[in-house]
This record gives sequence, C-alpha cells and structure tokens, in this order.
Amino acid sequence: MGKPIITLTTDFGTKDGYVGAVKGVIKKINPEVEVVDITHQIEPFDVLGAAFALNNFYRYFPKETIHMVVVDPRVRSSRQPLLIKSEDFSFVGPDNGMFSFVYRNERITEIIVLSNKKYFLAELSSTFHARDVFAPVAAYLSLGVDIKKFGSTAKECFKLIIPEPKSSKKGLSGEIIHIDDFGNLVTNIVAEFLQDKKIVRIVVGKKQIKRIARSYFDIPEKGVGALVGSSGFLEIAINQGNADKALKGKIGTSVRITFE
Amino acid sequence: MGKPIITLTTDFGTKDGYVGAVKGVIKKINPEVEVVDITHQIEPFDVLGAAFALNNFYRYFPKETIHMVVVDPRVRSSRQPLLIKSEDFSFVGPDNGMFSFVYRNERITEIIVLSNKKYFLAELSSTFHARDVFAPVAAYLSLGVDIKKFGSTAKECFKLIIPEPKSSKKGLSGEIIHIDDFGNLVTNIVAEFLQDKKIVRIVVGKKQIKRIARSYFDIPEKGVGALVGSSGFLEIAINQGNADKALKGKIGTSVRITFE
Amino acid sequence: MGKPIITLTTDFGTKDGYVGAVKGVIKKINPEVEVVDITHQIEPFDVLGAAFALNNFYRYFPKETIHMVVVDPRVRSSRQPLLIKSEDFSFVGPDNGMFSFVYRNERITEIIVLSNKKYFLAELSSTFHARDVFAPVAAYLSLGVDIKKFGSTAKECFKLIIPEPKSSKKGLSGEIIHIDDFGNLVTNIVAEFLQDKKIVRIVVGKKQIKRIARSYFDIPEKGVGALVGSSGFLEIAINQGNADKALKGKIGTSVRITFE
Repeated sequence: MGKPIITLTTDFGTKDGYVGAVKGVIKKINPEVEVVDITHQIEPFDVLGAAFALNNFYRYFPKETIHMVVVDPRVRSSRQPLLIKSEDFSFVGPDNGMFSFVYRNERITEIIVLSNKKYFLAELSSTFHARDVFAPVAAYLSLGVDIKKFGSTAKECFKLIIPEPKSSKKGLSGEIIHIDDFGNLVTNIVAEFLQDKKIVRIVVGKKQIKRIARSYFDIPEKGVGALVGSSGFLEIAINQGNADKALKGKIGTSVRITFE
Repeated sequence: MGKPIITLTTDFGTKDGYVGAVKGVIKKINPEVEVVDITHQIEPFDVLGAAFALNNFYRYFPKETIHMVVVDPRVRSSRQPLLIKSEDFSFVGPDNGMFSFVYRNERITEIIVLSNKKYFLAELSSTFHARDVFAPVAAYLSLGVDIKKFGSTAKECFKLIIPEPKSSKKGLSGEIIHIDDFGNLVTNIVAEFLQDKKIVRIVVGKKQIKRIARSYFDIPEKGVGALVGSSGFLEIAINQGNADKALKGKIGTSVRITFE
Repeated sequence: MGKPIITLTTDFGTKDGYVGAVKGVIKKINPEVEVVDITHQIEPFDVLGAAFALNNFYRYFPKETIHMVVVDPRVRSSRQPLLIKSEDFSFVGPDNGMFSFVYRNERITEIIVLSNKKYFLAELSSTFHARDVFAPVAAYLSLGVDIKKFGSTAKECFKLIIPEPKSSKKGLSGEIIHIDDFGNLVTNIVAEFLQDKKIVRIVVGKKQIKRIARSYFDIPEKGVGALVGSSGFLEIAINQGNADKALKGKIGTSVRITFE
C-alpha cells in the first residue's frame, strides 16, 4: 500500500499561486498525502472539458484515490459542494456536471453535500471554495474521516446533457462535443455504435472520410482521418497535424456516418 | 511531521527542461524532500506578479516549508541571492522585490546573502543561478544546515514600491496593480480601507459599479462587479467573464471609490 | 537512498487528462515511486525540442532515475518503443531521435526494444503508447524488473542529424537549431569551438555582435548579445528581452563568427 493520493484538476491557470494555496492546505492537514497534478489549465468554466479530462484518467489510479476537480469558481451559486464515493474512488468538487461520466461509468455508493464546517478552513472566504472547502475535505478524507461526517446524503448529482447521436436507416448522425489539446475533434459517437458496421463514408463539414483508421499512423501523413480515440469516442484527426485548425470544426459541428 | 517541503515558483516556462534541472539538483542533495510545483509560468521578469502569487499561497503550507521563488534570471546583477527566514517559513531567491509582501506580513528573523560556495553546485554557471545556487541552498537547508552557514547577515531586502491608494474627503483613489489569470483586475485597495464605509459608487475607466459584491456569484451574470478577492485586495471582476478583456483595464488604470 | 524516481517529459498538453492517465498507471504498479513532472508542453511533434529539454536536466537527477520522454504520439509507426540504459540512468520512450544527446554524452550499456506484453497495460490501445507501454514499463523498471525481460536487445537507436557548424580560415559558420521559452536563439555552436579564439564579430541576419558576454547581465539592457547558455551551446539573447521576437530568427538562420 502506498500513501493516500489526491489528484488535482482545475481551471486555476498557472500565474496566481491559487493552486499553491490548495496544495498548502492539503499538506498542512495531512503531510503524508501525495498530491498529484493532473492539470490546472482546463479552460475557465469549461465543465464539459473537465468531465472529459477526468474520464480520461480517473480509473487508472490506485483504489481509494481521491480525485478533486474544481472548475467554475463562481461560488455561492446553486451548485453545492459534493463528495461522491464510488466503489473504487472518491470525487470532490462542485455539483456542476463535471462528474457526469463518473456517474455513468462507476458504481456510486454515496453522495454527500459538504456542509460540516468543522472540516472547512477556519476563515471561509466567499470566493475560493477550492482552498477553503474542497482542499480541507479531501485532506481529512485522506486521513480516514468517515464520509458521513462531512455533510448530509444526497440522492443525485447534476448531470450534463451530452447530446446522443441519432441513428437513421442509412447510418448515424452525431456531433463534435470536445476538441482536445492536439486539435483532435472528439465526437459523441462511442465505439460500441460502430461495432459490426461497414462504413461507406464519414462526413464532417465538407470533408469526406472513407474508413476508420486503427491509429493516427494508419492515416496518410497530413491526411484527415477518423479513429476511436483512447477515451472510447470517435475522433476526427490529422496524422501529424491539427484537425481543429485545418477543418475549423466547432463544438456542435455535425458528423454523419453512412453504413453499407 | 511530514517530509520537508520545497515549493517552486518560477518564470522558466514549460518547454526547456530548466525546471527539471532544478528538481534534479534538489533531489540529488536531499532525496527525502518533497518538491511542490506552484507555477513555472510567471510572466518573464514579472517580479510583482511573482510577489502576488507568493502572497496567495505561502502561508497555507506547513511550518518550516521552504519557498523558492526565481523570476528574472538576469544574474550577476546587483540583485544578490537571498535566504529570508521568518518565524514559520524560509524563502530563497534573488533580492529583486519578490519578497515584498512577505516582508510586510511576516515576522522576519534573519536575512542571509548567499555566498558560501560549499553549498552551491560545483560547476557554477553564470546564467542559471536557480539550478546552481538556489536549488542546492534550498536542498541543504531542508537537510537542516544552519542558515548562518550559507553566507553573511543582511539588514534588509529590496522592496517593491507598491503605490498606496489616496484618500480624499469624498472617498479613495487607487489603481489596478495586477491582472490575474481569470482576467480579474486586482487593485491596491485592501479590505481594511473599506470597513464601516458606505459606498456610493466605484469608477473604473468609463464603468460605474454601485456596490461591493460578496462573491462572484453575487454579481449579475456577465455583469461587472467589485469584490474583495481571496488575497484581500479589491478586485474588479465579471461574473463568468473576463474583466481584463471586456474593460481593457491596464496596470495603473485608476479606480475611484466615492463614500457616502 | 530515496525512493525511485520517474521523470515525465511529454507533448501531451494540459487540457485532456492524458498526463493523469500516465501517472495513474505508474502509481498503480508502483505506489512507492516518485513521479516528477518536467514538462508536458513540448511543442507537439517537436522531437528536437524534447531532445534539448532532456539534455538540459537529465544528468542532474540522482543515479538510477528513470527518464520517460514521449513526443510524437503517432504510434504503430516504424519508431519502436525503447528502453535505453546508461551507466547512471534509464530512458524510456519511442525511438524517434529524442535520445540523440544522451546517446552522444552517456555511456550506453544496453538498448532494449520493448516487446514483452506482460509489462504492458492489459488493454492495449493503438493510440496511447505512453499510457499503455511506456508508463507500465517505467513502473516495473522502478520495481527492479531486470531490463532484459522487457524485450530484445538492439544495437543502436535512431539519432537526429544535428547540423554541424562549418569552419573556414576566417571563422565558423553555424545556425540556429532551437528557440527556448525565453526567446533565446540556441545555435549548434558548442563552447569548445570557441576556446582560445579571439572573436572579431558574430553575424546573425542583419545583426552584428562584437563579443561573447559572460552572462545575460553582461549584455547592455535591451541589447542583443551572444553567450554560452547553461546547456553549453552559443545562444543569441537580449538582456531583459526576447531575441526571437526582436530578431525574427528562425530555425536554420545562419550564425557566422569571424575570428581574429
């Protein structure tokens, strides 16, 4: 058994030392915990981006890892501070939809609305819940405090409505829901929809793609291709290039697949 | 007691591996120390930005934490390498004003000008003091070396002149001194100046604000507001937006508050 | 002896959680290993940039440190996954030239082509070798698995052809091969070429420089100068400025030195 782990995923950027305050609070409460940076450069307020990022990494960590995710610092909103416990992990952050994929994929055992000020920072600011609420709660949780002590049980958390692709006789119509750091256009079409199907063409804007590649390298150099990315969604990508810049795809651009 | 901690705040950027060299030097001297990244993306040469960042996080760390801050790598300048010891923390970095807030807020017990080459890297370059001077000094300090051994005592450190707000019969006139990563415009007006005052209006450029909000969420969505930020200064902010982009505020733009 | 260390240098960017997946895989296999971020913002596909970054830091780490470097995620290419063992360190990553400086500077004791799936992630994707191949191999290596078990021995690794400066009667003609995060223009002229030489002038584009400065501070403020950087190459730099922006130097721009 290693030390307990808290991962950090935020939109705090890299200039202001806000991340430092969060880390300081955690280490002061539990000097033994290991704090692992995932990213602090989620686009400000990009809740869906945070949900995607979380979905890309959370399951690879050791059991009992605590994942703290904070995007959208507009506090005192209707978004309550949450602790979500699944069979394998804990998740801490505001109830703004970032845990949508977790809620879909994991066996959730408990949802707690954080309200017990005993586990908050003594001087509670109204603008920095990550430092004053989420960091101390994650740290006390890593010390083994019973999750029931942090607040009252809730039945559900807020879930983002991620548009579902539509099927027709001839195929499937989805859309771009995320653009990753490499400029790959991530669609809402998951791998399972494509199993046992023969594909005639994939149309994105004015671009036609004839088949699904097995890897980036399977796409001709600088060519546009489609492939199932490492997170399980169909992506539009350019081998050694940036599909976002080349195709000017936007969130919401339709992606149509015609089956044989 | 946890392991000793060294935090790192620099303007080294993220492309060149310079941060890696610093971390390597530290771990080689004291494999047991925990190195905590704050940021390596302070704007190049932005000493005031580094001072603000440091002020935002340093006090949240466990006692005895060593904060290493390096901005402005123009070495062999008149700026001497310093070790500042306060009651609770140690600070290591060039004497260029980054420790101005620390000097104001902390009880300083000792200032040492680093000169003992025994605690520097053997091959001293003339261009990379962070790797060759500050990293080894921080590492030896974390091993418990007596601070007197690192050099000679100094009486003072260089302090940035942060403009003070001016009061008049009718109110207070301050200015923007920092723009944070969310685009919030941070002024030189600290919370204490506003206590027990009734505010008629706050004027920033052509914009009028009528009251001080308690939190970002307390500002109408996309509206401009003023509030006391988590670091204790009055900020001009837009709820779910970027005040810097919208208002084109600049460092030095005046902020006028009229009291009742 | 401290805990084993794995350093991470990638072009994965900071938005998507890919770095998180790599860290999770490593910590799950060896909870005791210390993962040290170098950078995740190498320019996408910038193999030479990664080679420079690696060269700037690897040797400063404690012996036995494992350096994982992953740039260019175009997998299933002809670039095989490698483990390179030198007397002091191990290096893990694709065989695309990133280890060129290491190969030149270190005493290499073994090169292994990674092929033993026992040490890969069970569900091997075709697009994310860092998570599925390099991370688990680095983690098992940190647990002490014999390097021979990871695959078969290779004789050589791929080396980037870094253009050599040309000497003439009158001097030396080199070129810019890298631009660092401060905008310093790094040339292919190493310090040894300049020993015992008296320099008349250095010409970069339309700019003439008369001597080699000892440090950035030795260049007049805002002036253009030349100096040997911390990595041992001649650099063109501006004191307190950005040479890249001011001189519009490009990779390949010639740099001519005239000796007395």
